[in-house]
Amino acid sequence: MIDLEKIKDPSFIKDLSIKELKALAKQIREFLIENISNTGGHLSSNLGIVELTIALYYVFDAEKDEFLFDVGHQSYVHKILTGRAKDFKTLRQFGGLSGYISKSESKYDIWESGHSSTTISAMSGLMLANDDNDKKIISIIGDSSIVNGVALEGLNFLGQIKGKNSIVILNDNKMGISKSVGALSKVFSKLRRGKFFRAIKTGLNKILPAFISRFFHQIKRGIKGFIQQDNIFEDLGFDYYGPYDGNDLKYCIKVLQKIKKTNEPLVIHFQTKKGKGYIHSEEDAQGHYHGVPPFNIETGKPKNVNSELSYSQIVSDYLLNKRKEQEFYVVNPAMKSGANLDEFARLYPNNFFDVGIAEEHAAVMSAGIALREKNVFLLMYSTFSQRAYDQILNDIARTDLKVIFGIDRAGIVGEDGSTHQGLYDVSMFMAMPNIVVTMPKDGKEAIGLLNYALNVEKHPIVIRYPRGLSDLTKIDDYSYQCDLSWDILNDGNKCIAIGYGTDIARIARIVNEKNLDVMVVNAKSLKPIDLNMLHKIFNKNIPIIIFEQIISSGTLYHKCLEFKEVNNYSSKVIKHSFDCDTIIPHGSIKDVYNNYGLSDSALENRIKEVLGND
Amino acid sequence: MIDLEKIKDPSFIKDLSIKELKALAKQIREFLIENISNTGGHLSSNLGIVELTIALYYVFDAEKDEFLFDVGHQSYVHKILTGRAKDFKTLRQFGGLSGYISKSESKYDIWESGHSSTTISAMSGLMLANDDNDKKIISIIGDSSIVNGVALEGLNFLGQIKGKNSIVILNDNKMGISKSVGALSKVFSKLRRGKFFRAIKTGLNKILPAFISRFFHQIKRGIKGFIQQDNIFEDLGFDYYGPYDGNDLKYCIKVLQKIKKTNEPLVIHFQTKKGKGYIHSEEDAQGHYHGVPPFNIETGKPKNVNSELSYSQIVSDYLLNKRKEQEFYVVNPAMKSGANLDEFARLYPNNFFDVGIAEEHAAVMSAGIALREKNVFLLMYSTFSQRAYDQILNDIARTDLKVIFGIDRAGIVGEDGSTHQGLYDVSMFMAMPNIVVTMPKDGKEAIGLLNYALNVEKHPIVIRYPRGLSDLTKIDDYSYQCDLSWDILNDGNKCIAIGYGTDIARIARIVNEKNLDVMVVNAKSLKPIDLNMLHKIFNKNIPIIIFEQIISSGTLYHKCLEFKEVNNYSSKVIKHSFDCDTIIPHGSIKDVYNNYGLSDSALENRIKEVLGND
Repeated sequence: MIDLEKIKDPSFIKDLSIKELKALAKQIREFLIENISNTGGHLSSNLGIVELTIALYYVFDAEKDEFLFDVGHQSYVHKILTGRAKDFKTLRQFGGLSGYISKSESKYDIWESGHSSTTISAMSGLMLANDDNDKKIISIIGDSSIVNGVALEGLNFLGQIKGKNSIVILNDNKMGISKSVGALSKVFSKLRRGKFFRAIKTGLNKILPAFISRFFHQIKRGIKGFIQQDNIFEDLGFDYYGPYDGNDLKYCIKVLQKIKKTNEPLVIHFQTKKGKGYIHSEEDAQGHYHGVPPFNIETGKPKNVNSELSYSQIVSDYLLNKRKEQEFYVVNPAMKSGANLDEFARLYPNNFFDVGIAEEHAAVMSAGIALREKNVFLLMYSTFSQRAYDQILNDIARTDLKVIFGIDRAGIVGEDGSTHQGLYDVSMFMAMPNIVVTMPKDGKEAIGLLNYALNVEKHPIVIRYPRGLSDLTKIDDYSYQCDLSWDILNDGNKCIAIGYGTDIARIARIVNEKNLDVMVVNAKSLKPIDLNMLHKIFNKNIPIIIFEQIISSGTLYHKCLEFKEVNNYSSKVIKHSFDCDTIIPHGSIKDVYNNYGLSDSALENRIKEVLGND
Repeated sequence: MIDLEKIKDPSFIKDLSIKELKALAKQIREFLIENISNTGGHLSSNLGIVELTIALYYVFDAEKDEFLFDVGHQSYVHKILTGRAKDFKTLRQFGGLSGYISKSESKYDIWESGHSSTTISAMSGLMLANDDNDKKIISIIGDSSIVNGVALEGLNFLGQIKGKNSIVILNDNKMGISKSVGALSKVFSKLRRGKFFRAIKTGLNKILPAFISRFFHQIKRGIKGFIQQDNIFEDLGFDYYGPYDGNDLKYCIKVLQKIKKTNEPLVIHFQTKKGKGYIHSEEDAQGHYHGVPPFNIETGKPKNVNSELSYSQIVSDYLLNKRKEQEFYVVNPAMKSGANLDEFARLYPNNFFDVGIAEEHAAVMSAGIALREKNVFLLMYSTFSQRAYDQILNDIARTDLKVIFGIDRAGIVGEDGSTHQGLYDVSMFMAMPNIVVTMPKDGKEAIGLLNYALNVEKHPIVIRYPRGLSDLTKIDDYSYQCDLSWDILNDGNKCIAIGYGTDIARIARIVNEKNLDVMVVNAKSLKPIDLNMLHKIFNKNIPIIIFEQIISSGTLYHKCLEFKEVNNYSSKVIKHSFDCDTIIPHGSIKDVYNNYGLSDSALENRIKEVLGND
């Protein structure tokens, strides 16, 4: 029995017997279930990759070779083996262990990959600028991530670079986050079926002498082909091996030892069982155990059940309800479960498209739908909308095609941390032509803006909403509609607070509770801004604070400064948002709020500071 | 003999005999060479696609079916056939015919694709929201564009959608802009070789009855495989036909007539000869005749030869020269010829990587190289840098990896028009952490900033430079180095002009020539800004004009307003840049300058206006 919390580095693995390694795997799996049930985190993918990670550390040299975990959330086992088990109690908490790869955490963390599908390109760079020809560089990438455009571009590049020790490990759990989509997922299942034939082919490869290979290439391919086709990876220039059972530790080791000797570009295909070892996650086809809140191990149910609807839930309920009345399309890249779209997908399969991790394709396809003058909702997380910047700018905004963007997880995202913060989308969208940018202050206004977007607006429009719970436990009125004008939530005479989203609702509450003499303005439309209201505001000639939970660059603060300058007003304008160089780490939203000036008391103090200065 | 300029719509094609169609092809080719030699434009790809375009219009129904030309610059023949030959004298000129697909120009222009690789995703959307099941939707896409991430995501999606009449025409000229790169380019050459075997396979397909297909799938695949492997497109779910000779008009028609009957997802592979019919472009392996300035038909040489170096040339000369002294890498996505990198690529093949149209991969790979603490230049056009927004933000800026960005074609790009304007990169980069953003005012300062970036700066740094000629005819001093502080180019007391790039050099010249009492400040670093200089400037308490040739959102004007607000200054700050909703069309840079407030006299008038108001 190894004390996981006492592991300093992965060298101990080399001394273990297969039996001991298997015991280690079991122990790690129990550790993961126990810990994640307390802290929440990414469960299923880590349960699936236990044996494969152990095998990698057993076969390769962790002090020299480099492992790049694509989408860092499959790296928990790697974290345990590199001496971080003792920190798992703080997983994804403020100041605690990151849920992703983090260079500041460990020298074994090579590549910080919060967003998926980058490791093949990263290993290309690491490999080409590498002076040590003995060093193996290994990308461990899932079946959903490998079909993203970046990964495919990476494969297309890497497949032509010979003799450089690049190894791609395809961790195929047939799932991605939920079920894999796209034609390539069928390719993978074909490969899964082809095991037996491939074994013969491998044998054949050894028998056929090199000169036959040279002179009768086509015939050799034919003979091989009689047994098994070349596959897409071989087409791309890789030697392909697999599929192998990635949960069979002994076999994983055998395979890795064998392929370790070659230095050509390789793809090794392992099948792993997502959620393995925990009954509830093994049986989960929808991806509910992909990322989990703290849960009861026995029942598999979340420890805390909230009665409020999340904003994602409000949007998906709205879509379900509205679809009964009118036709529209919903496009989303690989967030069907995270965005509560399972039911919509089931009921309206011809109007719902989960395109997998393919944000660029999702944006252009939505433009194509809009070009037919049909309504289309493109639902993305704020952080992933960044991946389609050029397509949104060129194919939607420039051409003024009405796509309705539901930008989820806008603002601080909490436990996922720096790579996933929804802090850039406002800066990004506000620079683009024709596009309307909005954020509702509460659940009712979310419905209002959705109705406005669907039935009134003619231009592309962004509705952004935060991660987490709304103020609603149920939706009473699906027909409520609002416009883009700004609202005065509280009247006052000493200073003016302008903002949007749930923050401005919080500020209105605080101002009321504390009986502060502050005018509170809900700027629910950031583009266009409400010029009439701004004239009213500046004519009061009292200090104005602009609250924005974003990176401030071309956002509301700058627009208000420009308005002031152009119209020769003199009210002081104070910023409460993040500078461009701010990088905000992981932690509960509450802890991040407390540490980055967004707690109720911080907002109150900022207002009081301005009131005091006046 | 058809009068091309009298064509109203493509219906006349249906009535022509093969002989007449061939004559038409010849005539169009002559028309293209004649016209493009006068106006400049995209020559080679259009010469290659003459027969294929005619065949498409002959076989399909232009009034119902939809052609999507990927990267619109291969659409000149389409423009001629749809009634625009008479406008070719104005090609790419201000107010004239666009060099790309333009919805405002013609109802036959379905999809505006300035940036490559979007048509497969666009047709997915058009197809899914399509009510007319008879309508064929056809993407015509080149061999370089189809390997970009967006196109690959599109193929992965589209291949699984059955019975929807989607046709992908692979226009394979083996070139892309210059030579195709990446493993998939080898796949295409394999396909080119496989013609004979594929013919047998197609026959075999017909012979083998359906029940064998069902029950002995593996064996059938084996027998087929003996003749020819399945290829990557078939792996992705498409029926694949080809390769066919795309310059054999009669054969093109035959093929298209045959495949028209199927409604499954198809890839039809045509080989075309880039530059066909014009000796100089046929023999061009470097892509010099891809996009050309006006040229002498006889000699193939440009009509106007300039003695000044372009900014691209300054950068490539610098890299060539510096590489003799110190090691670094150069990465670029498919702009080797446009950026004058042929010589560097030839001399330093291990340090130069043209990754093809794969901006995202280029960015992440550069991050990988930087992670090894090696210097790396990532050279991209401003407009294409937008395609890697997320990777630059997450994998370079957030992680503070020193990549040196050479951002070419920054500002107004001229003839390429709205999809290619370099007007967003400043807004984009300035929102990102750690990244330094600069622009030199002239050739010497370009060298100065390159040396600063290579040998002094520790953070990621952007050096942006415009399309077109610099002030230098040769580089005298490769060792000149400057820092990021702002410079006073002219002293004066009535107002202050701040700007960057060649515009601020022009303004200094104008102010000097006209003897205006204006202080001119070269803000060569946009991030960080020069706080000392700004205090000096604002302490003068005279009006400040900020000149920026960009979309103004979070850029220098906003930063200066913020500086003024925070430091309680009162100088008036005036903006001279573009609002977010501005879309700037094609035309010579001079014409665009004249029409969008950037001519010398417009700059002078703006300054005088402010002087007059003072």
